[in-house]
Amino acid sequence: MSKVTIIGAGAMGSALVVPLITNGHEVRLWGTELDNKIIRDLKNGKDHPKHKYPLPKAVKPFSEEELPAAMEDTDMVIMGITSDALGMIFERVVPYLKPGMIIGSVTKGFEYATDGRVVLLPDILKEKLPAELKDSISFVFIGGPCKAIEVVWESPTSVCYSSANLEAAKKLQATLMTPVYRVEANTDVIGTEICAAMKNAYAVGLGMAEGFKKRKGFLHNNTKSALFTFAVAEMGILSRALGGSLVSVYGLPGVGDLEVTGEAGRNRTLGEVIGEGLTASQAVAKMKAEGITVEGYPAIRFGYLMAKQLEQEQKLFLKELPLLAGLYAILYEDAPAYETVTILLQQCTGAYKQ
Amino acid sequence: MSKVTIIGAGAMGSALVVPLITNGHEVRLWGTELDNKIIRDLKNGKDHPKHKYPLPKAVKPFSEEELPAAMEDTDMVIMGITSDALGMIFERVVPYLKPGMIIGSVTKGFEYATDGRVVLLPDILKEKLPAELKDSISFVFIGGPCKAIEVVWESPTSVCYSSANLEAAKKLQATLMTPVYRVEANTDVIGTEICAAMKNAYAVGLGMAEGFKKRKGFLHNNTKSALFTFAVAEMGILSRALGGSLVSVYGLPGVGDLEVTGEAGRNRTLGEVIGEGLTASQAVAKMKAEGITVEGYPAIRFGYLMAKQLEQEQKLFLKELPLLAGLYAILYEDAPAYETVTILLQQCTGAYKQ
Repeated sequence: MSKVTIIGAGAMGSALVVPLITNGHEVRLWGTELDNKIIRDLKNGKDHPKHKYPLPKAVKPFSEEELPAAMEDTDMVIMGITSDALGMIFERVVPYLKPGMIIGSVTKGFEYATDGRVVLLPDILKEKLPAELKDSISFVFIGGPCKAIEVVWESPTSVCYSSANLEAAKKLQATLMTPVYRVEANTDVIGTEICAAMKNAYAVGLGMAEGFKKRKGFLHNNTKSALFTFAVAEMGILSRALGGSLVSVYGLPGVGDLEVTGEAGRNRTLGEVIGEGLTASQAVAKMKAEGITVEGYPAIRFGYLMAKQLEQEQKLFLKELPLLAGLYAILYEDAPAYETVTILLQQCTGAYKQ
Repeated sequence: MSKVTIIGAGAMGSALVVPLITNGHEVRLWGTELDNKIIRDLKNGKDHPKHKYPLPKAVKPFSEEELPAAMEDTDMVIMGITSDALGMIFERVVPYLKPGMIIGSVTKGFEYATDGRVVLLPDILKEKLPAELKDSISFVFIGGPCKAIEVVWESPTSVCYSSANLEAAKKLQATLMTPVYRVEANTDVIGTEICAAMKNAYAVGLGMAEGFKKRKGFLHNNTKSALFTFAVAEMGILSRALGGSLVSVYGLPGVGDLEVTGEAGRNRTLGEVIGEGLTASQAVAKMKAEGITVEGYPAIRFGYLMAKQLEQEQKLFLKELPLLAGLYAILYEDAPAYETVTILLQQCTGAYKQ
């Protein structure tokens, strides 16, 4: 039995309580200042307000000021923080870390590093570690198709844990894996993280094909499948340009997570309304007015900026990524969606290159 | 301009009329005895009864007894025949073939060869060629996500033409490609054909995850995405065991075609009713009573038999294909769907092997 502290009581961090409790671990769920209501509800025995479903009673909720207690003698930490707050919150956790600890992370996306470059989140976490812990802390990044609520419901789920230290990934795997929460382990951190970040961007494109149906009066399933294939191919190009492999791209973090993200959700919805005929400016303004944040929208911009960085470093050619460039033009330059997609599909290739 | 004869006036063969006419070719559409009504309707200027939508007026329809006229001086042939009749109909076409001709095929699936082995359809076509034509006729196999009706509507579509003779694939590509019907060419005939045949089988599994929602009262999107990922991985194992590569598996014929096949259609529906709680025997009997044929049902059996052949030849281990084995157990041995899928997911791996 281990003591595991989950940092952030949002939907995904809280969902991991379920396999951890199934496996008999002591689970502390710490909420940030944004999670006050969640922690209060859990302390009062109510359902988790994001899941609208009960969590196992054995979980121990900790409020923002109780971080020291939540971290006391803990064996493992799992970061379940939104991407924009990850670095800031991780700084608060760092003083409690000890050599040999494993830090899991379900946070996905891009950020700016202190030097202004666009980076994946592993770089943000590593940047915050003090020198004396840099070699003794292992990070494990969690990818794959995983709607949080389905982990709580115990729908059979398969995910991927990636770490530069395969033993750390396997240790976290052994801690969380259950008959309905299956974990694969690999060392392709970059592949897993680029897919985790970019699947939201490409899902906006898949949504557009759904919207074309309403606009044109007939299905565009062929278009959606072509976009799906080319999205996977482009995630592969990005992974390799960043030094990752294709293991995760063609596995659960890439193919699998894009499938579930394209099925439903806010990213798809944003694409759908643009496909139906709204300009991106109108669609984004509408979702902002409704208080809806769509991860795919900044992901398209971050992904495009990162691709430009990689081109400058001669690690890829931007013209190898016509789908990403087209999504950027549609979302940030109000290029017409139908015409842009039709043209970019003539430039895309699903051709697999080893 | 070329003269192109399409053999079989079903939905897919007839759909290819559209890009061919767009490109200014002379197109002859020949119907078998099963297509009499279709050819009669087209000759009378009516909509194609399968598409319920008009075909370009320039197409020349030929009825069963007009095969000599349909084949006269033709440059290329495209076979659009159901898999069970492909060999028989191709025998009737053979006398009209000339050295150097290209034969395209949109037919997908498995058949028994004359020696009783389960084979992919390219072997059936090659078997029927007379010795003097074996080296001078090039076959091109068409795969990728392509609902026929969307080709007729001109929804942007991307497909893959595979041939042992890349020049032949490129020639057919140049003949058919339009701004809305994009064609990639490769030499991975086996990969393209195993995906074309097996995507129907695996789509039955994807449908089951949809059915689990009704059975359990909550979504199983995570389960569906995991099944999707593992289906792609198993198509890769089958392709390589047969001597194919991963080019098509991770491209339009594999990832792409599985996506469109899992979205909707009869294969998915069969899986869905089984996922909801019908036994496979009940579900198959119900669909037979309604006169519905589901390609995925025989494909699961053929695929399983082929995998057993390959195991005997020491080209793979059946235990590498837990999803296919599980689908066989559910569909042909009435194994309980939910329990079987939950257990097989613990054995599956999306791990990408070069």
